[in-house]
Amino acid sequence: MSHLTNTFAGQKQFMNILDKFQKINTFMFDVDGVMTDGGILVMRNEDMARIMNTKDGYALQLAVKKGYKIFIITGSSFSGVQRRMNNLGVKHVYFEVKDKKSYVIKLMQEYDIRKENILFMGDDLSDLPAFDVVSIAACPADAVSEVISGANYISNKEGGRGCVRDVIEKVLKCRGDWGVDETIASTI
Amino acid sequence: MSHLTNTFAGQKQFMNILDKFQKINTFMFDVDGVMTDGGILVMRNEDMARIMNTKDGYALQLAVKKGYKIFIITGSSFSGVQRRMNNLGVKHVYFEVKDKKSYVIKLMQEYDIRKENILFMGDDLSDLPAFDVVSIAACPADAVSEVISGANYISNKEGGRGCVRDVIEKVLKCRGDWGVDETIASTI
Amino acid sequence: MSHLTNTFAGQKQFMNILDKFQKINTFMFDVDGVMTDGGILVMRNEDMARIMNTKDGYALQLAVKKGYKIFIITGSSFSGVQRRMNNLGVKHVYFEVKDKKSYVIKLMQEYDIRKENILFMGDDLSDLPAFDVVSIAACPADAVSEVISGANYISNKEGGRGCVRDVIEKVLKCRGDWGVDETIASTI
Amino acid sequence: MSHLTNTFAGQKQFMNILDKFQKINTFMFDVDGVMTDGGILVMRNEDMARIMNTKDGYALQLAVKKGYKIFIITGSSFSGVQRRMNNLGVKHVYFEVKDKKSYVIKLMQEYDIRKENILFMGDDLSDLPAFDVVSIAACPADAVSEVISGANYISNKEGGRGCVRDVIEKVLKCRGDWGVDETIASTI
Repeated sequence: MSHLTNTFAGQKQFMNILDKFQKINTFMFDVDGVMTDGGILVMRNEDMARIMNTKDGYALQLAVKKGYKIFIITGSSFSGVQRRMNNLGVKHVYFEVKDKKSYVIKLMQEYDIRKENILFMGDDLSDLPAFDVVSIAACPADAVSEVISGANYISNKEGGRGCVRDVIEKVLKCRGDWGVDETIASTI
Repeated sequence: MSHLTNTFAGQKQFMNILDKFQKINTFMFDVDGVMTDGGILVMRNEDMARIMNTKDGYALQLAVKKGYKIFIITGSSFSGVQRRMNNLGVKHVYFEVKDKKSYVIKLMQEYDIRKENILFMGDDLSDLPAFDVVSIAACPADAVSEVISGANYISNKEGGRGCVRDVIEKVLKCRGDWGVDETIASTI
Repeated sequence: MSHLTNTFAGQKQFMNILDKFQKINTFMFDVDGVMTDGGILVMRNEDMARIMNTKDGYALQLAVKKGYKIFIITGSSFSGVQRRMNNLGVKHVYFEVKDKKSYVIKLMQEYDIRKENILFMGDDLSDLPAFDVVSIAACPADAVSEVISGANYISNKEGGRGCVRDVIEKVLKCRGDWGVDETIASTI
Repeated sequence: MSHLTNTFAGQKQFMNILDKFQKINTFMFDVDGVMTDGGILVMRNEDMARIMNTKDGYALQLAVKKGYKIFIITGSSFSGVQRRMNNLGVKHVYFEVKDKKSYVIKLMQEYDIRKENILFMGDDLSDLPAFDVVSIAACPADAVSEVISGANYISNKEGGRGCVRDVIEKVLKCRGDWGVDETIASTI
């Protein structure tokens, strides 16, 4: 947990964020800049490829298996993401979402999720409004400056380099759900 | 604006460059080494893919929406760039331009743009002559040495890692046009 | 051998690990995060591409030629890996392995290999159980924290950046098998 | 030329290497790890893609235009490299070369080139024997340790990150051939 202590200045805030992590049962993730490093591979005939991370993949599968809700909310529309997420067991993938705050509120109502149970991770301005309606507003180490200012948890990992695993691992460790699961292949 | 102070030695030059930023309403960008890190993915049957950046994508869309003129001027010919730029709302994409200086002058006449309104960003020797005919001659942090010497604004971001967003953000902030726009998805 | 001295605190442990390296004649490698940096290129129609490393390729070919046994044991199923490994002369590639520890035991029986002869390299939790049944439990510099804690050899190279070559080179140097072989192209 | 002074300890050696650079009219380059960072993109159906660098591309075109001989000598066989090199004006591309030293000698005879005129750049053990028969044995900053020990010029740029441009630029500057050429697009 030493990363947490670095992230927050005072002891009181540190306790607050630990409390918050223990109550999370729902993860919401942006795709570009969070599940990827923000790179888009532009090819001639294909729609645009992305590079994702196998270490994140292990954590996503474990979280699904332990019963956590996971939602992918992205402004883009890219069929490869759907396929990758489905391979990992993540069923809720929402494309072409522009107003993410309204979308999060809609999902909270539809799936009966409370604010205190949600961790949302985003990296760019379009993610910022959604920070208001969740408990943990998380971002990768290389998020844009406005998002870093607005987050209450800044991962020490960058987008596409383990920031998704970082937040899942922290929550699952707080709740006793983290560990080796021999039925999970990190790279399905 | 602290980046600006680092980039320029004296207070007077600092004021000059701020003045210049405030007058920009037209952006001209090279592609390879500016919108990308200079990498070209060489495949067997495809023409050559490039990796672009979603954070740049948000800034380009916002600039278009706020009425800025954006021109892409590249020596290469790659259909994927056309498609990506069109997705972001950028209509003016010029391929196989070898003499960029003459091309900039042609565009200035055709679209009635004055020198003081133009920011041009390039990274390699073929971009250098065009620096003479624009107000802000910008380059990424990893431009070649001759271009760094010739530029009057050196971004602290590298090609493909946010240098395009950096200059757009600086101009739009100077002019009160920067911010969250919930109708923009960074990764269309 | 100076890397080895950095990796292990005391002189006695240093001698132990050198002893272990000298007895290795069998390598077992995970793919994602070991032969690659963990990145998965997600495209629309393809299964998911990986980026491997030519310097690792030279070492794998040399080890095959010198008579070492090499096994690739991965949780994923990706035909490109099969082809690449076959090009390098590596014949034993096992896909969709979830319980790697049991699989290693099975291979030891099938190919009559003793524990003291095996170096296994992995980077993530799914590799950790297999560490119990091998002599050298190796990992790349950027393995997850649990794997770094469990390994008895931590390469100073990251996954996809030469960690495979590092362990092959160390073993082959200990045994007098390392060197220039003019019949090997690093990049077949 | 400040890089040169860093690379060589004494003043005398510094003069020697400058003398050598001034006599170069022929470049020979390995591909993987020199024109690329050593990464190979392994896909399902394609042969294996590589990432090359546009800054190197500008230098290669300028060297061709100024009349330098350029030979690409690689152990691999990849049609994309042929196409990319032809686009840049490089006609001599030799694939599946295993014994590079013999091949260099063959080319010297065939094209009547003397040892003192050749700069050869490679990064791995298979390149090492060829170092004996050329004037400047160059390597990227991230070559393997044996190659770094054997080289008499170590670029401060890594493979795929400008090491090819570095040596071309140094030679062309020594001989008064370097500069902006407005008929060259860096990214043809």
